[in-house]
Amino acid sequence: MSALDQILPFYRDILGLEEVPLDDADGAHIAGLSAGDSLVELLEAARKDSPIATFVARRGPGIHHICFAVPDLDATLDRCRTAGVRLIDETPRIGAEGKRIAFLHPSATGGVLIELTE
Amino acid sequence: MSALDQILPFYRDILGLEEVPLDDADGAHIAGLSAGDSLVELLEAARKDSPIATFVARRGPGIHHICFAVPDLDATLDRCRTAGVRLIDETPRIGAEGKRIAFLHPSATGGVLIELTE
Repeated sequence: MSALDQILPFYRDILGLEEVPLDDADGAHIAGLSAGDSLVELLEAARKDSPIATFVARRGPGIHHICFAVPDLDATLDRCRTAGVRLIDETPRIGAEGKRIAFLHPSATGGVLIELTE
Repeated sequence: MSALDQILPFYRDILGLEEVPLDDADGAHIAGLSAGDSLVELLEAARKDSPIATFVARRGPGIHHICFAVPDLDATLDRCRTAGVRLIDETPRIGAEGKRIAFLHPSATGGVLIELTE
């Protein structure tokens, strides 16, 4: 049984979160769970060279990142640049589910890897 | 300037999250920010022997835990026990803002420290 199949029942059956179908992305299998207006994504590396495989090899399993939806992604990235907040993605790219996203560098945000979407 | 005062403008002014007043708790200064129906809590140790001070000394700044609101905390803890999910708090205790809370052990949840509340 995969690590994803092992942990999914905890979130779905014990916590009672509703499962949301999500496509695989970025070399990872993804299970989605709805929690209020938030979405919990459980990721498991599908390839050894995927970003999630690298993270788990280095840090062990745990919280990878947190994503905030902002009204205007370009304007938010502009405010980051003005304030000197280091970006991983200088311009928005297309992420999972076809949404425009950008990652900020955790050195700028107190060690927290933050993804922004619209 | 404290670490909390340094990072707060990022969440409030750059991401545009609304600040929510929160009392200090568990030996930590806490800033709250509203994100949809979620609450982001930024914590900074107010005492060297506080749980947050221990966490930051060991792991550096970053995401400490995630909290889920469940309809019935006692029933959820019962389901955890039945499934063999290791608990930090065997029975609910009173947490910040006077709410009943319980922490689960990260070894049971893929390395993620989870707090439950009602």
